[in-house]
Amino acid sequence: MKAPRGTVDILPEEAVKWQFVENKMKDICNRYHFYEIRTPLFEHTEVFQRGVGDSTDIVQKEMYTFEDRGGRSLTLRPEGTASVVRSFVEHKMHGNPSQPVKLYYFAPMFRYERPQKGRMRQLNQFGVEVLGSSDPAVDAEVIDLAMSVYQELGLRSLKLIINSLGDNESRESHRQALVDHFSPYKDELCNDCRTRLEQNPLRILDCKTDREHPAMENAPSILDHLNTYSQSYFEQVKNYLTLMGIDFEVDANLVRGLDYYNHTAFEIMSEAEGFGAITTLAGGGRYNGLTEELGGPQTPGIGFGMGIERLLMALEAENIEIPADDDLDCFLVAVGDEADQASVKLIHDLRMNGIQVDRDYQGRKMKAQFKAADRYRAKFVLILGESEIQKQLVNVKEMQTGDQKQIPLEQVITYIQGKLSGGNSNE
Amino acid sequence: MKAPRGTVDILPEEAVKWQFVENKMKDICNRYHFYEIRTPLFEHTEVFQRGVGDSTDIVQKEMYTFEDRGGRSLTLRPEGTASVVRSFVEHKMHGNPSQPVKLYYFAPMFRYERPQKGRMRQLNQFGVEVLGSSDPAVDAEVIDLAMSVYQELGLRSLKLIINSLGDNESRESHRQALVDHFSPYKDELCNDCRTRLEQNPLRILDCKTDREHPAMENAPSILDHLNTYSQSYFEQVKNYLTLMGIDFEVDANLVRGLDYYNHTAFEIMSEAEGFGAITTLAGGGRYNGLTEELGGPQTPGIGFGMGIERLLMALEAENIEIPADDDLDCFLVAVGDEADQASVKLIHDLRMNGIQVDRDYQGRKMKAQFKAADRYRAKFVLILGESEIQKQLVNVKEMQTGDQKQIPLEQVITYIQGKLSGGNSNE
Repeated sequence: MKAPRGTVDILPEEAVKWQFVENKMKDICNRYHFYEIRTPLFEHTEVFQRGVGDSTDIVQKEMYTFEDRGGRSLTLRPEGTASVVRSFVEHKMHGNPSQPVKLYYFAPMFRYERPQKGRMRQLNQFGVEVLGSSDPAVDAEVIDLAMSVYQELGLRSLKLIINSLGDNESRESHRQALVDHFSPYKDELCNDCRTRLEQNPLRILDCKTDREHPAMENAPSILDHLNTYSQSYFEQVKNYLTLMGIDFEVDANLVRGLDYYNHTAFEIMSEAEGFGAITTLAGGGRYNGLTEELGGPQTPGIGFGMGIERLLMALEAENIEIPADDDLDCFLVAVGDEADQASVKLIHDLRMNGIQVDRDYQGRKMKAQFKAADRYRAKFVLILGESEIQKQLVNVKEMQTGDQKQIPLEQVITYIQGKLSGGNSNE
Repeated sequence: MKAPRGTVDILPEEAVKWQFVENKMKDICNRYHFYEIRTPLFEHTEVFQRGVGDSTDIVQKEMYTFEDRGGRSLTLRPEGTASVVRSFVEHKMHGNPSQPVKLYYFAPMFRYERPQKGRMRQLNQFGVEVLGSSDPAVDAEVIDLAMSVYQELGLRSLKLIINSLGDNESRESHRQALVDHFSPYKDELCNDCRTRLEQNPLRILDCKTDREHPAMENAPSILDHLNTYSQSYFEQVKNYLTLMGIDFEVDANLVRGLDYYNHTAFEIMSEAEGFGAITTLAGGGRYNGLTEELGGPQTPGIGFGMGIERLLMALEAENIEIPADDDLDCFLVAVGDEADQASVKLIHDLRMNGIQVDRDYQGRKMKAQFKAADRYRAKFVLILGESEIQKQLVNVKEMQTGDQKQIPLEQVITYIQGKLSGGNSNE
């Protein structure tokens, strides 16, 4: 039996890398003063229909939707924002004394797509959401946080693309211009785009099928339709990014796949050679209006989602090694029944005192036990035999130097602690 | 819109506690030399039908099973062991040079039950599995690890219950004795138990409905049916626990709800007053035979699952406070447009240098900004006004002492770093 198509196991060797990047993300979130939130793996389907948008590919084609035994329609979370905003509304966080509410999450997402490199059916995202402020400095802070994650992990071939989708007025004006522009070519567009022309013409710009259609080239740009407020907002975001020393490119065709974005939209791509066809590492934007859509009071919001699988791929593409200290502190070799009994207690006590230790559980002979210790790259091998037990001693071998010492049983813990903390031993 | 019935959001205040206990678990797993594994949220339904057991309540009544868009029957993971063993088999870990394979996981589980305190439809478990050794010292190590988690977190009202379910021969002899014993009362037993009498009579002992039936009292005990090997195995496990100083009680009625257990079974309960009716904190046992059931070679295994929600409830019942340092390092108050611009860069630089800092994003007046800093329990408030900008200074107020100093802009980072690391400032 295998893991379901489009899902993978993260095995120990790989999991160490995940822990490393997740710890980095948590550390950065702490410095930026964001707090973790965890929402359930599934939601009432309506949350995504309303919160992601009925006309999006995600909702129309990619969701894992099922009925529970009580007949409720539930959906495995396909993205992070709608769930967090649902939680914000349910728990009335707009009433918190501290505003804005700055949240981050780690969460598996589920999308029924054709699996390929960098696109799995279960993917894992890190993301943040800031709710309750429409200060353009928040937009810059959110982008800055995302860039910091990549930079502190050592990625260098990064490209930040930003755009403004404007406020409702600007969007409406652009929408009308798009309808006017594309309507003459309606019959030449793909089926999806014909529907989009009615429902959400902005997303025609995002179409993979019609990418090469000549009408794409001179399609009206949102940037020509921003009203004064939206223009000024965008200018401030760009100014803040510049002040922080963050390079970016403006791309008027960046529209993002979800219905709820307005004002700032951004994507971070990897430009590393050999990274593959899908270059987007993270994407996000502002979603003023989403909170109302999910039954809450008017509350501005902005956030991003960052795929952890793709981040790891980008690190690999740039040959960045994740530091992993997985050498074992101690391996205990016991010979004989009495030593076996004594070792059980010693191992327990070592562990209770912060020392990492393992032993043989396969009934191996002494020589094979030393081999196992080597495989674990043990720093110390502790040997307990009959004679040691009689003298209440432990034979401690420091593997790097080959030094071997007899340490009284009751001093082993402090001896090893001293050695491991880098000081001289206290014999 | 609300989270689905039987699920909850873990809000920031709560999430801090989760992080703390999870870090403790990871730390202990590291000392015991276990490695993390992450399996997908769902599996082919067959994995649980075969790996948990077709006749169990979990498989018969409680699974979230659905078809994906390709018509595959998938099930959200109801427990941790079957998935890990499926992964062990798929990745041929029995061939790893290092044996046994010692794994741990953190994972949401899904069971469609009537929600009540301590029993949710999405629950979160920490668990471990050791595959590849049938040394009774492994059983003791696994129990020891579970107890260490609770003890290091400070729980005192704990009870460890153990039992042996014996090997196949012992189980078969016991099974026959159970059938002989309960058959005369068949018509007085509940519907489920009548089925169990055919399929798995051991689980009659676990029945909540028939708990008070007189036939329960003198039902045959597994301990009277253990063959010599099983008896000796159990004696060794008990001996190792005693050597480690771990108290336990033997309860011959402890059978666990899953089909695949043999030899050692154990549960850890909270005896704290006011903890509630469901007192089990963790449960586990040995499952030699499960690997074959899931298509792998004969491989012994043992593990446990530990509910994180219940652990947090037990900590609360024992009034154990989780240490949380969530005072903010710095809050920056900027007054005026120029200061606002300068503050964006300063905040970015502080964060890049490991310092936690936040600012106002609500357009608040100065006084309200100080109030926000208080709410965050800021250790330092940095004030940037017009005059400071002109002189390239920052006004730094240490909130605990009330001391206020003017620090040159380019020295602020080292000044705060010095203060936070507890040393004297390097002014």
